[in-house]
Amino acid sequence: MCQLLGMNCNTPTDILFSFEGFHRRGGLTDHHGDGWGIAFFEGRGVRLFLDDKPAADSPVASLVRQYPIKSENVIAHIRKATQGEVNLANCHPFQREIWGQYWIFAHNGNLVEFHPDTGCYYQPVGSTDSERAFCHLLETLRQRWCQPPTLEELFAAIETLAAELRGHGVCNFMLSNGDWLFVHCSTRLHYIVRQAPFPTAHLVDDDVTVDFSTVTTPLDRVAVIATVPLTDNEYWTPLRDGELILFQDGLPLLHSVSTPPTRRVDTGGCDTDAAAKADPAQS
Amino acid sequence: MCQLLGMNCNTPTDILFSFEGFHRRGGLTDHHGDGWGIAFFEGRGVRLFLDDKPAADSPVASLVRQYPIKSENVIAHIRKATQGEVNLANCHPFQREIWGQYWIFAHNGNLVEFHPDTGCYYQPVGSTDSERAFCHLLETLRQRWCQPPTLEELFAAIETLAAELRGHGVCNFMLSNGDWLFVHCSTRLHYIVRQAPFPTAHLVDDDVTVDFSTVTTPLDRVAVIATVPLTDNEYWTPLRDGELILFQDGLPLLHSVSTPPTRRVDTGGCDTDAAAKADPAQS
Repeated sequence: MCQLLGMNCNTPTDILFSFEGFHRRGGLTDHHGDGWGIAFFEGRGVRLFLDDKPAADSPVASLVRQYPIKSENVIAHIRKATQGEVNLANCHPFQREIWGQYWIFAHNGNLVEFHPDTGCYYQPVGSTDSERAFCHLLETLRQRWCQPPTLEELFAAIETLAAELRGHGVCNFMLSNGDWLFVHCSTRLHYIVRQAPFPTAHLVDDDVTVDFSTVTTPLDRVAVIATVPLTDNEYWTPLRDGELILFQDGLPLLHSVSTPPTRRVDTGGCDTDAAAKADPAQS
Repeated sequence: MCQLLGMNCNTPTDILFSFEGFHRRGGLTDHHGDGWGIAFFEGRGVRLFLDDKPAADSPVASLVRQYPIKSENVIAHIRKATQGEVNLANCHPFQREIWGQYWIFAHNGNLVEFHPDTGCYYQPVGSTDSERAFCHLLETLRQRWCQPPTLEELFAAIETLAAELRGHGVCNFMLSNGDWLFVHCSTRLHYIVRQAPFPTAHLVDDDVTVDFSTVTTPLDRVAVIATVPLTDNEYWTPLRDGELILFQDGLPLLHSVSTPPTRRVDTGGCDTDAAAKADPAQS
């Protein structure tokens, strides 16, 4: 399946350690070789790196691994194509502007029979179900609000939209405007909040260890969210099917779990790997 | 002043040679150290690299210099801030989606007393006059057409909008959807079309020479557009005040020159360098 990585912090933080393990899943320790992307918010601006080459041997990934870009919100994605050919326009994350803010979206899953009406404000450029989902989500929000709603209104609307998308199949996604990181799970996502006293962590995908206490201050707080845990000596909290969490300043702030959709078309898609099948509670 | 670089080709081409000279103007051979950016179209997709560091010592610029990304349409910009602080959100080029296509825009100039109404479809994220101009331009097009118009209709509309913008001050810009590259001049832009028999070219900003005949086929055609010529042994055609050119497949396809605006507020802004002042025909 595709894989997602997100980070939400209370202070600009680099994602070098997590990305070191994550990017290896793009063709090296796993088979997601159909492109990748990563978005870093810096204030209201975004750096969005996309590449249709496998992350494991992408020159752009090498830059990201060597250049400690500090950000409070990051979303990364490595792709195993299900819908849409392998090309740059189909690489996640996707970016659009709404209410004078950049929003970033990445999706892991497969939405079947999902053909929303052509948007007035947002239309997909590529041919993925994922970008259609993003445009449909923004279109719905923009049709409803000309100006940014309150956080509570927004959370409720995204909860409803996530449930609608989940009715079409597997729909794990991450969505951020640079302040908030919305994370929705339908099969597999895990998160961890790191704060003082900071641990020493060891990557699953490479023999790399970092002592976070040497690179942080006691006030730092960082939430990392990933499809599959990135470290093998820390406890990662699994999200439940239908769970939506809003992270802000490195903490899960709002939370909901919607009931399973009545019409569930789950063909598995890129999520039909053995581990997902072995755990019915997560599929 | 800020500087612009554009490339439009009939076959995917790398911009390494031109960018080698251009990026040095971002803090090394010239003083445009307030960030930079470059956008490469690949099919319908875009790679957009932005950095608020000077181009001359940016790690992202190093990547672009070493990674021969091939593209049929490229827009690059190095910034000398006039309006809007130095940060990522204010770096050009800017990107939006309209009619299911990504459009890219970069601007050199200074628009004064330019405060268009808040857009229904597009709103700026940063605080530059340039992004306001881009959003106003797209807003006007989108209000007028729900679907892409013909090229002739689009050219006429952009001609009118360019004249409106020019009424607020210096307005050199480049605009592309990956097929077409619109270039508008109000003070300084030059272009060259390279095709067989290909020349040997020598950079102005560095002692680098390239024999294009060794890296091209006889059918290749490349138009390069820059604020100031990048080579010192080729003839670059200067654009006139008010000139709009549409490039396609490496050739200037459509062309117009509008009359000077009746209300011209040209405070010079970042364009008040000595060379521009010395040539009244270009200011």
